[in-house]
Amino acid sequence: MLVYDFNHKNDQKLYEYLYECLKKDILSGRIPTRTRLPSKRQMAKDNGISITTVINAYDQLLMEGYILSKEKKGYFVADVKAMEEYRPKPLEFTKIYHEENWFVDFTANNTVYNKFPFSTWKKVIREVLAEYEMELIMRGNFLGEEELRSEIAEYLYRSRGINVSPECIVIGAGIEYLYSRLIKILPSHAVYAVENPGYKKIPRIYEENGLQWRWVEMDENGINMDSLKQSHASVIHVSPEHHYPLGTVMTAIRRQEVLEWVSERPDRYIIEDDYDCEFRYRTKSIPALKGLDRNHRVIYMNTFNKTLAPAIRISYMILPEKLMEKYIQTSNFFSNTVSSLEQYALAKFIQKGYFERHLNRIKKYYRTEGERLLRLIKQSRVLPVVSATGTENGTHLLIKLDTSLTDIEIKWAARNQGINISCLSEFCGEIRPEYQHILVINYSDLDENTLREAVRRLSNIFIQW
Amino acid sequence: MLVYDFNHKNDQKLYEYLYECLKKDILSGRIPTRTRLPSKRQMAKDNGISITTVINAYDQLLMEGYILSKEKKGYFVADVKAMEEYRPKPLEFTKIYHEENWFVDFTANNTVYNKFPFSTWKKVIREVLAEYEMELIMRGNFLGEEELRSEIAEYLYRSRGINVSPECIVIGAGIEYLYSRLIKILPSHAVYAVENPGYKKIPRIYEENGLQWRWVEMDENGINMDSLKQSHASVIHVSPEHHYPLGTVMTAIRRQEVLEWVSERPDRYIIEDDYDCEFRYRTKSIPALKGLDRNHRVIYMNTFNKTLAPAIRISYMILPEKLMEKYIQTSNFFSNTVSSLEQYALAKFIQKGYFERHLNRIKKYYRTEGERLLRLIKQSRVLPVVSATGTENGTHLLIKLDTSLTDIEIKWAARNQGINISCLSEFCGEIRPEYQHILVINYSDLDENTLREAVRRLSNIFIQW
Repeated sequence: MLVYDFNHKNDQKLYEYLYECLKKDILSGRIPTRTRLPSKRQMAKDNGISITTVINAYDQLLMEGYILSKEKKGYFVADVKAMEEYRPKPLEFTKIYHEENWFVDFTANNTVYNKFPFSTWKKVIREVLAEYEMELIMRGNFLGEEELRSEIAEYLYRSRGINVSPECIVIGAGIEYLYSRLIKILPSHAVYAVENPGYKKIPRIYEENGLQWRWVEMDENGINMDSLKQSHASVIHVSPEHHYPLGTVMTAIRRQEVLEWVSERPDRYIIEDDYDCEFRYRTKSIPALKGLDRNHRVIYMNTFNKTLAPAIRISYMILPEKLMEKYIQTSNFFSNTVSSLEQYALAKFIQKGYFERHLNRIKKYYRTEGERLLRLIKQSRVLPVVSATGTENGTHLLIKLDTSLTDIEIKWAARNQGINISCLSEFCGEIRPEYQHILVINYSDLDENTLREAVRRLSNIFIQW
Repeated sequence: MLVYDFNHKNDQKLYEYLYECLKKDILSGRIPTRTRLPSKRQMAKDNGISITTVINAYDQLLMEGYILSKEKKGYFVADVKAMEEYRPKPLEFTKIYHEENWFVDFTANNTVYNKFPFSTWKKVIREVLAEYEMELIMRGNFLGEEELRSEIAEYLYRSRGINVSPECIVIGAGIEYLYSRLIKILPSHAVYAVENPGYKKIPRIYEENGLQWRWVEMDENGINMDSLKQSHASVIHVSPEHHYPLGTVMTAIRRQEVLEWVSERPDRYIIEDDYDCEFRYRTKSIPALKGLDRNHRVIYMNTFNKTLAPAIRISYMILPEKLMEKYIQTSNFFSNTVSSLEQYALAKFIQKGYFERHLNRIKKYYRTEGERLLRLIKQSRVLPVVSATGTENGTHLLIKLDTSLTDIEIKWAARNQGINISCLSEFCGEIRPEYQHILVINYSDLDENTLREAVRRLSNIFIQW
């Protein structure tokens, strides 16, 4: 007879307590394997509880495999040998991941946080919360909400001379994510061209996905056409508006050449990464390649990470018709990765003109910031500056130094000063004399005193040596 | 002499107008290739404008490649041959993507929208907007915000007997996204086991990524161990708590066998997809495999799509230590895909007990809904029901029918009635007599009248034939 003391059950339900008691006894061997349990009626009677309580407890044990049910014979204890209750301790690898603490991090391509229009953004979110309801929770369009795609299409027409239907636009949580989807719909035999020097995340994505890729040289007009042709690449990733980190603007003639190249074979594509197009200070933006894309071979990508904020994870790409059809076939079983709330908020933010107003403000800010940093660098009597460029557009400077230190020595000496800095050589496929001793300085959000101190610390490197 | 009429410039800036005029003349050939442009001073004088205006216009032309600058010689028109202004028309593939309009869609694994706690969710978002500021825009932790990971860890401990540190948890915008990252850190030679029948998205992800995978049979206790061993798979994807679509709960003994299997070789892993664990109506939840994972080989995945709302794109996975180290190495250059605002909102929503309160409400709802649907189906005098199961847990029923129609005929007949329905055979690797004629009915959010009409329409299929 199995009788348990139900006074010990605390705030558990009766059936849970009975289940726990039986499980404990089964695991400890007090009720041995293959024992027949009392019938439900008997168990209820013995313990002064209802049959329903016993049924629920037996069901749970049955479900978890502690007991077996044999038709017309009753319930038997299963062979649970070493199934003692075991709860692994939480892993104690506290802080595998350290974020380093820098005095200034010149490698971070951050946005200027203190210019973010908090009250407007919050107001827009509150408006969306008030105006929308089911749209905020129901599965949305897997390509992105139509409201946002329409606003982006109109914005691109106004600002970049790109005339596309909202239906060509795909919204996603970050360029990396969109890229991971894009490579699935490009020809599987594609060979990718990566600008040398260039943005290192791109070849990393190709490597990770087992794709073939080649370095292709840059010249002063953009990607070098001879090098491109020699590479036998079929898909090129370019930033014609502002190459990172060289700052090169692809000339109109080179744009034409690249568009001619892509039209020569049906499996060629251009990925136009327009990450920085909004930050042009002295002159108008140059029309995007996508705006000249007669043959429907340009994939255009951009993001609101930098123009709005990195924590608002919204990026987008424009796909040519054929690729869009393929995207829909291969991706319609995926949900969109961006929350609907923020898609509607951003749509409203653009539609009301807040986005472009914000852009104008931060453009002015970056322009001043870049010029200030350049002035401070030029004023340093110690930094062996040969040339300094980058205030025309974008948010980074290139500072060429005359020094016998290697780039690695410069980086380590800067690190000792609490400064994280990149050298142009890090963006190259192989070592090149012309790309040595050039600092790549991303600036944003630093006040004059901090910048002054950062320049002083950088200068220290060259005093000590 | 080049003189332009600045009265036509409308609201353009002076330099933009001059740039447009010159560009037009260059493209039309009015100013031929290799022509030397007037000096800046001359141009300014001829047109009665400032030198700065000319500088800006020339700079823009230079940048776009329409003119070239030769040192000490001046500016020359470039060879721009066919570079006429060309704006491609927007693609007119209106509505490539059609969402079908169903009277009832029994294939959609939706959540119950009308039970969503809008006012609480909106209140929480407003609180986050009021309390947080920089955290909402700065680049967040690439693994997910600590607040949310902590709340998830505590919730898992309370509800699933899983005792892990928040540092093992990775937040991402949807299970598909997390899966795409996970397969990059699992052994590259891994062979994946997919339950047969099973959730078809999983092998689709393997296929898309060129991974090897095998079907493995199911039996009444869970994944079949003999079939698993014969498959030579090294990574298994299982839903021990509630197999989809069979509804099988993996028994305690099978759990033990699976954990033994995984410990036999260092490259074996279990992916525990706990998608449905919250919806258990009659009995307690069974402890997750992850809760018994002594050898650190279980990857646990879950999502808030169903328990909260699909438009709030938050899912998570728990990684064992070794995989976490690899994840950090390979993914720290990616940003997290979930917006910070919604991460903080969800953390607060769980922390204040709103999440579990909501869960209890929708559990009650689903339980009633499932029982109601089952009753309506059983009441139908026309539907040739052999057996009907699924009201113990989850949000779908399995209805076995006695019919001479094929599954494809059933589906098409249902489609003609405006009803989208799946058959179990669709989830199988190959045709099996025992999995024929079984409807998989996902229910949610349908009122009694709609359900009654849907059952009536389903019945029609069997009257007509």
